[in-house]
Amino acid sequence: MTHRRTVETTFRVRYAETDQSGAVYNANYLVWFEVARGEFFWQRGGDYAQMFEARGLYLVISEAHLRYLAPARYGDRVTIRAWVSEIKSRGLTVEYLVANAETQAKLCEGWTRAVCIDRAGRATRLPDDLRAFFE
Amino acid sequence: MTHRRTVETTFRVRYAETDQSGAVYNANYLVWFEVARGEFFWQRGGDYAQMFEARGLYLVISEAHLRYLAPARYGDRVTIRAWVSEIKSRGLTVEYLVANAETQAKLCEGWTRAVCIDRAGRATRLPDDLRAFFE
Amino acid sequence: MTHRRTVETTFRVRYAETDQSGAVYNANYLVWFEVARGEFFWQRGGDYAQMFEARGLYLVISEAHLRYLAPARYGDRVTIRAWVSEIKSRGLTVEYLVANAETQAKLCEGWTRAVCIDRAGRATRLPDDLRAFFE
Amino acid sequence: MTHRRTVETTFRVRYAETDQSGAVYNANYLVWFEVARGEFFWQRGGDYAQMFEARGLYLVISEAHLRYLAPARYGDRVTIRAWVSEIKSRGLTVEYLVANAETQAKLCEGWTRAVCIDRAGRATRLPDDLRAFFE
Repeated sequence: MTHRRTVETTFRVRYAETDQSGAVYNANYLVWFEVARGEFFWQRGGDYAQMFEARGLYLVISEAHLRYLAPARYGDRVTIRAWVSEIKSRGLTVEYLVANAETQAKLCEGWTRAVCIDRAGRATRLPDDLRAFFE
Repeated sequence: MTHRRTVETTFRVRYAETDQSGAVYNANYLVWFEVARGEFFWQRGGDYAQMFEARGLYLVISEAHLRYLAPARYGDRVTIRAWVSEIKSRGLTVEYLVANAETQAKLCEGWTRAVCIDRAGRATRLPDDLRAFFE
Repeated sequence: MTHRRTVETTFRVRYAETDQSGAVYNANYLVWFEVARGEFFWQRGGDYAQMFEARGLYLVISEAHLRYLAPARYGDRVTIRAWVSEIKSRGLTVEYLVANAETQAKLCEGWTRAVCIDRAGRATRLPDDLRAFFE
Repeated sequence: MTHRRTVETTFRVRYAETDQSGAVYNANYLVWFEVARGEFFWQRGGDYAQMFEARGLYLVISEAHLRYLAPARYGDRVTIRAWVSEIKSRGLTVEYLVANAETQAKLCEGWTRAVCIDRAGRATRLPDDLRAFFE
């Protein structure tokens, strides 16, 4: 885990994110992973939509893995740490750790692989400046 | 309520749509309203994205109202009836009634007003053929 | 708008909250309204789930109204101001204003009415201490 | 893939499920996986909430994996096939294949592992009658 490639963000669990089991619904962790990816850009003064989409590029998720370790509850403050663990010519892998911000209990860990595509949906080389942004 | 302007669709409540109160989360009724609008097109052989967006037009919701009458539960089969209650030169109003498909108990009623806009976001006259589609 | 009854919270628009029109999907404003209600509790040292649900009470939305004024976009910082505009023996009304945190442009305004119910779903008098919390 | 353990369900992509890339947002496939699990019960005359939750048991997702193969679009009819691929004393694995119902193009494949827990959150033996339901 390189420091320069790591981002951290903390927020409260929304009521909308719970389900009738009383805990956070499983799909919402993928949303939280995406929030962390967004923060990676924002905390470095960038913005995914402006840096990628505005020039006709998309980072699309090609694979995702999640391990659920403990339930998150409504109102909990959760911290997500995300780091770029691998950069390839056409994509990158991000790893995530979601923890309770108070107790530091691990709630979920996972990773996503993303591929850089153009407007036609073809896998494309990550431009050098964008690649450098992740390094 | 004109018959030709009415649509009906029935589906099961998803677990993702519940919250920790044990009932369906309030925002999901707006999603269901949209499903009914989509069915209005599909059941007449059309498709909103192809008929509007593909020619640079959008029907955007400008106002919405919901009255929640009884909770919907996971696994319930719910029926949404929607009908175009008013058509104006630049938009239309749709009304909705969500009921339990088994008991017919009313769960929610509401309406949405939509405005036709172009790619620049300007309110635009609803083209005659699209207007005719709703009549 | 009484100061003591007002809350304000600011956050970034999530990618998950957009739809293919390129703006925030209409139902998500109801989620944001709920985030603001949650903040009303958290910013005063309380928590809805602990103050209501833990004693068998629920504040359920009985009616909602939204006027959409301008689109919110991915990555925008939005500010929601919410205030309790009316308190009755069995419920309360909250009003909301969503604005772009940078430009202050109004994006959405609305209100929700909530009723206090018990575990059996019966409308119930708001206990004095909870009523005082909103005053 | 045993026939008796397989379920299939088909539905339209909702507008709410798209994001500004113009395709279905990645987290929604986990929601669709859950819809298929629900159908597994409903199509056999059962219901997850009544068979598990009503007796104090929950099947919680402990691990999930998704491979995204092609984008799903608004209005597409998608078919999800799901089958129980492994049953253990305290849980089970379900595999999924999401395809375009018209073209049969594969959109996403994945699996989820679920653990049976009781109200206290402890991993618990899957009762024999429930285990038999999956066989």
